[in-house]
Amino acid sequence: MNISELIRLSLEEDIFQGDITTESLKLGNKEISAKLVAKAEGVLAGLDVFCETFYQVDDQVRIDRYKEDSEKLQKGDVICRIYGASASLLKAERVALNFLQRMSGIATLTAELVAKIGDERAKLLDTRKTTPLLRQLEKYAVRAGGGFNHRFGLYDMLMLKENHILAAGSISRAVELVRQTDSSHKLEVEVTNLEELQEAVSCGVDRVMLDNMSISEMETAVLKFHGKVELEASGNVNLSSISQIAKTGVDFISSGLMTHSYKSMDISLIFEEGK
Amino acid sequence: MNISELIRLSLEEDIFQGDITTESLKLGNKEISAKLVAKAEGVLAGLDVFCETFYQVDDQVRIDRYKEDSEKLQKGDVICRIYGASASLLKAERVALNFLQRMSGIATLTAELVAKIGDERAKLLDTRKTTPLLRQLEKYAVRAGGGFNHRFGLYDMLMLKENHILAAGSISRAVELVRQTDSSHKLEVEVTNLEELQEAVSCGVDRVMLDNMSISEMETAVLKFHGKVELEASGNVNLSSISQIAKTGVDFISSGLMTHSYKSMDISLIFEEGK
Amino acid sequence: MNISELIRLSLEEDIFQGDITTESLKLGNKEISAKLVAKAEGVLAGLDVFCETFYQVDDQVRIDRYKEDSEKLQKGDVICRIYGASASLLKAERVALNFLQRMSGIATLTAELVAKIGDERAKLLDTRKTTPLLRQLEKYAVRAGGGFNHRFGLYDMLMLKENHILAAGSISRAVELVRQTDSSHKLEVEVTNLEELQEAVSCGVDRVMLDNMSISEMETAVLKFHGKVELEASGNVNLSSISQIAKTGVDFISSGLMTHSYKSMDISLIFEEGK
Amino acid sequence: MNISELIRLSLEEDIFQGDITTESLKLGNKEISAKLVAKAEGVLAGLDVFCETFYQVDDQVRIDRYKEDSEKLQKGDVICRIYGASASLLKAERVALNFLQRMSGIATLTAELVAKIGDERAKLLDTRKTTPLLRQLEKYAVRAGGGFNHRFGLYDMLMLKENHILAAGSISRAVELVRQTDSSHKLEVEVTNLEELQEAVSCGVDRVMLDNMSISEMETAVLKFHGKVELEASGNVNLSSISQIAKTGVDFISSGLMTHSYKSMDISLIFEEGK
Amino acid sequence: MNISELIRLSLEEDIFQGDITTESLKLGNKEISAKLVAKAEGVLAGLDVFCETFYQVDDQVRIDRYKEDSEKLQKGDVICRIYGASASLLKAERVALNFLQRMSGIATLTAELVAKIGDERAKLLDTRKTTPLLRQLEKYAVRAGGGFNHRFGLYDMLMLKENHILAAGSISRAVELVRQTDSSHKLEVEVTNLEELQEAVSCGVDRVMLDNMSISEMETAVLKFHGKVELEASGNVNLSSISQIAKTGVDFISSGLMTHSYKSMDISLIFEEGK
Amino acid sequence: MNISELIRLSLEEDIFQGDITTESLKLGNKEISAKLVAKAEGVLAGLDVFCETFYQVDDQVRIDRYKEDSEKLQKGDVICRIYGASASLLKAERVALNFLQRMSGIATLTAELVAKIGDERAKLLDTRKTTPLLRQLEKYAVRAGGGFNHRFGLYDMLMLKENHILAAGSISRAVELVRQTDSSHKLEVEVTNLEELQEAVSCGVDRVMLDNMSISEMETAVLKFHGKVELEASGNVNLSSISQIAKTGVDFISSGLMTHSYKSMDISLIFEEGK
Repeated sequence: MNISELIRLSLEEDIFQGDITTESLKLGNKEISAKLVAKAEGVLAGLDVFCETFYQVDDQVRIDRYKEDSEKLQKGDVICRIYGASASLLKAERVALNFLQRMSGIATLTAELVAKIGDERAKLLDTRKTTPLLRQLEKYAVRAGGGFNHRFGLYDMLMLKENHILAAGSISRAVELVRQTDSSHKLEVEVTNLEELQEAVSCGVDRVMLDNMSISEMETAVLKFHGKVELEASGNVNLSSISQIAKTGVDFISSGLMTHSYKSMDISLIFEEGK
Repeated sequence: MNISELIRLSLEEDIFQGDITTESLKLGNKEISAKLVAKAEGVLAGLDVFCETFYQVDDQVRIDRYKEDSEKLQKGDVICRIYGASASLLKAERVALNFLQRMSGIATLTAELVAKIGDERAKLLDTRKTTPLLRQLEKYAVRAGGGFNHRFGLYDMLMLKENHILAAGSISRAVELVRQTDSSHKLEVEVTNLEELQEAVSCGVDRVMLDNMSISEMETAVLKFHGKVELEASGNVNLSSISQIAKTGVDFISSGLMTHSYKSMDISLIFEEGK
Repeated sequence: MNISELIRLSLEEDIFQGDITTESLKLGNKEISAKLVAKAEGVLAGLDVFCETFYQVDDQVRIDRYKEDSEKLQKGDVICRIYGASASLLKAERVALNFLQRMSGIATLTAELVAKIGDERAKLLDTRKTTPLLRQLEKYAVRAGGGFNHRFGLYDMLMLKENHILAAGSISRAVELVRQTDSSHKLEVEVTNLEELQEAVSCGVDRVMLDNMSISEMETAVLKFHGKVELEASGNVNLSSISQIAKTGVDFISSGLMTHSYKSMDISLIFEEGK
Repeated sequence: MNISELIRLSLEEDIFQGDITTESLKLGNKEISAKLVAKAEGVLAGLDVFCETFYQVDDQVRIDRYKEDSEKLQKGDVICRIYGASASLLKAERVALNFLQRMSGIATLTAELVAKIGDERAKLLDTRKTTPLLRQLEKYAVRAGGGFNHRFGLYDMLMLKENHILAAGSISRAVELVRQTDSSHKLEVEVTNLEELQEAVSCGVDRVMLDNMSISEMETAVLKFHGKVELEASGNVNLSSISQIAKTGVDFISSGLMTHSYKSMDISLIFEEGK
Repeated sequence: MNISELIRLSLEEDIFQGDITTESLKLGNKEISAKLVAKAEGVLAGLDVFCETFYQVDDQVRIDRYKEDSEKLQKGDVICRIYGASASLLKAERVALNFLQRMSGIATLTAELVAKIGDERAKLLDTRKTTPLLRQLEKYAVRAGGGFNHRFGLYDMLMLKENHILAAGSISRAVELVRQTDSSHKLEVEVTNLEELQEAVSCGVDRVMLDNMSISEMETAVLKFHGKVELEASGNVNLSSISQIAKTGVDFISSGLMTHSYKSMDISLIFEEGK
Repeated sequence: MNISELIRLSLEEDIFQGDITTESLKLGNKEISAKLVAKAEGVLAGLDVFCETFYQVDDQVRIDRYKEDSEKLQKGDVICRIYGASASLLKAERVALNFLQRMSGIATLTAELVAKIGDERAKLLDTRKTTPLLRQLEKYAVRAGGGFNHRFGLYDMLMLKENHILAAGSISRAVELVRQTDSSHKLEVEVTNLEELQEAVSCGVDRVMLDNMSISEMETAVLKFHGKVELEASGNVNLSSISQIAKTGVDFISSGLMTHSYKSMDISLIFEEGK
């Protein structure tokens, strides 16, 4: 499902056979303007989706943008101004905000986590713990906040997790099996201790996920394998722990936090005098 | 989009042309079991959707349920046990959890808010501030947590908000206009002070939304109009403020908090020994 | 399914992989005009859908409108004139007329019924007895003819019919049950005699449907309950009976006649000389 | 769009996010039965679609059939009996009846017209004047009533109507053009007088449509061309005129009446005692 | 599925959630041009589909055409030149070529076969042995190469093949059965010898398919029945055999070769200097 | 689009509103059998899709399989036997064969190419030069024939081709740019000579595509870089050239031949006596 279809279905979810209130008012083509205002600090993400929602409702709507995605917003900042028939603005408003507030919430939390990493080499990666059907938008929001994307789904990267390894018998056997079929995708293996890490490296995998390892184990991993294999820390990542994890020198830190437990950013659409 | 289609598209989002890792392992029909465990306290919601996700991947999967939606979970509680081919469980796991963890997160937050209302008459209502395409599931989760649903979209209730009233000229004029067209849906009007409330009541509306009124204004509203019109408090509703709002005696308290700023509940699927 | 999609699928139903006659003629871009003429008296409805059908086939088609929906047409009236490639007009003609003739047929019958109500207070309501997939258009046509819409589906109004009441045990029990779950939608109850009407009013429902009541029973119902509950007459509504029903003073008269047993209005598209 | 999809979308049109009345009643799995009764005389059509509607809502519903499509019904005849959860029956009832009543209305009117033809050779044909998206069902209903189908759309038969002939210059030229491209489909030409008929026959077309010809012209046409080309009468076909048209000896009589101006047949679903 | 939808899904198949290479390069709006060059001799088919693929990716792309469908191409011929953002050209290129190379391959092979028929009366017909979902495009390509289309599917022509005849009992019985139901579509019957041919002709069928008959049998068939029924040769048609088949004087030769065993034509898109 | 949907749409393409021949015959439920026979040597691929096509038409069809995908077939081999209503077999036959013959054609050509590689280390890879909408099936058929899959689309592997490099300025710059955004996917770079190869290796890419290099250049490439980077030969791969290319010692040989220029394998469905 592409973004345009996603917006179309979201509008259908909200409006279905009609906005009975607005249509009953028979407001005609009276044009008004409305400004989009940040009610809190944060990082903007989703302005294209926000605008496209209005355009789908009424292709006569015009929007002047003052801010762009990835920009840091202060409380009170005007993000854009929308001109169009009042009926169109009333119909599109809620769906447009439902996208924008969520995406900006993700970008904001991502930016906070990235700030904690500071100058360390680690890149912050997202996960597949995204809202069903919104993965593309949520992963975009992670990038807007300064993070990076891990795989998009089960189809674009080979990733042997604990349960795959159990099913195959061992890391070596699992790696051998997948490589017999697939030579085209990057291969990552989840490991939980240094022995498994050693085994994975010996198999020639591209990346290892250090799952819930202690800080000292991760330091050892970096010492022994940095540059030989990509090292990705995972587990218990939050605003308190991330700095220390980054200091171990791992290449990546992955976390579902940005997409499964963000708060929507408070952004309002304020109607102005009609023209 | 019905629930079955929603799950189908969510699986397609994650798997697309194939789970390249699991399929490369060629695990065959080896059957295993896995248990679904609460890793934190909370209220369960979404077990049907969770199960249906597995069934769509493989209709041979069987699930024994030990808990049901709306039940309070303790950390460590086993919610259900799943039996099926390991490849099927590995493919469905993430999408199924993405639904369940979000829905249970909503139910949990809703239940906390409802507990704060205690014995007061107010019912907690949700809003249209839901995740695009997940409104039906999120509103279900609110009910599972003990809340009630406000309108489902723009199509099933007449609601004159500030901007409609501005566009029409006055509350009286707006009510007159909508009633000329539509006699079949309930009519709610947003008011911001007692004068507007008086005007709305005079027009014979079914419900008023008291928007960001002070506690004392709400008390006056209840004193004058309880039983004559349904009174719904709205604005700045959170775990700290809701008890006091409820004590004013309003009939409803509506809040977007449960659906726009919840945390996913921590629930894990743990693979057990194969049979 | 929105209107645009409905038209797209209707064209696909008629044209599928190609209009083999018109395409074989290889008519090129030769532009012609055609006029849309009423061949009988009636009320116009569906001109937007008619035009959109041509635009979907060829966005170069232009249409000059002389009449608008809700207007009364005399035999011979020219409704609009269409300019475009002859191949495009030949492809779109039948589907466009299939919509317009049906919708105008509904508007015409509705207007006849409304005329019989005359100055009485009753509003004529439609029902859910509409053609599958065309409900939105048919309910629009009812409005174009001067009628009003009852609920759009099972999702936007609570309506306890005889079978719901049977299943719940009694009117009071049924009302209690639905109100425990749903406080947001209008509630109507079907009653068949004055005792049931009294019970429904006591429960505080918003509207009652007087099903197949005699004229004198309806007169009594109005005498006792007008202003306390909305009264809707239903059953055996037709061009002969409706005046007398309206004279009882009920607030609404609902009938499926306009949407289940109308005649298509005779409207023709007449090709004129090419330019 | 196949029939199964058509039913699915029709249910979605009526139920959308939920049958709020029935779901609020929480009726559980209580099973009941309901009988489908003809309230007027007519010909049955659409029983498969009717049943499939119930099955789509709940695949546990069972139906005993006593009548089949094409059968003549007397007032009071029980067509089938349905067993299932009351909630399922309540949800599916209206959509199922909306299909069945329309289809049976078409079959009934078709049978009346066919009866007027009596023993004459003419077969009654339908047209493309069908309800958008229901063409397949309506043409099926025509067959159930004893009629025959003309082409299904613009894609399965070559048909040169007046406007095609105008655009091409002459009947001969139009026939030549289409046959240069298409040798695989039957070719019919519309003619309005005996000279055009002669020209069409000379071109070797498969069928001619005698459009609005007088009875005596049609008699001449039959006299001269019966057996050399298929002769199809069209225009002003109704219950009064059809006998006389048939007596001219034409091979086919085509009319849009059966699909554009039928009345829904009165058929009711009556709930019986629960088991 | 219409062509526009077919292209949309084909792009989705190739790009899904993003062209990760091109998007990572962040090439901006830099416009370039590219020329489409024939790398071998052949007949062009599919230029509209090729162009539409680019337009769907980016409606700002412009294309200058130098060749049109059905034109014979020499190695080195420039077919068109495309101007647009390099990112857009990179995204659309492969899908656009996948259509064009296949369609031109079909047109090329068709033209070779048609050339072998030379001045004989036989028209070359395609079959239903087309690539799933591409039938409309492949049949178009056959026409572009100088061939003609047989029926488009099971829905637009009556065709009694060996297995139908077996199931019905005999040719005569099968013809009688289909004509009892369907008078509107052309009827073809498959025969394997002269006796069956005689029987089919006696039944008044419109066309016979001479299946795998010898050259001398076909000559006899033509001698006896040419002008009385359309004669279509089928079976073992290839570049070596087709001339001799055509010389028998049959009206049609049908073959699946053009659509089931063509080679893609070698056509390249060559990027030129940016502007 | 998943496989099930692909089959559904392919059946709709062929049958649309009905198989008018078979339905007119009114064959009832008479069950017959039919055997699927190889008419030439080859490798089987697509039996699941073949069977699923019959099951979608009629879920009462049963199939006994004697061969499986990847098996080598001799002329005359019976692949499976199908039991079901003759009407169902007649409807599904053509679409089912259209899939199977194409997929087996691809598997057969792939197996021939793989045989030419013999014991050399090179794996044969496919490309994105697949039939629109059939990529998943065609890539499956390549695997069934002993080949391997290159990337599935633009979304699952980073691949810098000549035009990307031109747009970015140089190999080094292009690699730097993509790695700034994307760390999760494998990165391949196209090179045309040994200098570019050296540059690509220095940038740390995962694989290089040696485009149209001479045999001696490829030998040098293998000598210098085997084991340091994956080496993939591309260009002018066919049954004559592939052995020599393989002998250079490259890791992979990629070719579009198997999917853009295969012949459908000759496989027939032969109806047997009814039961």
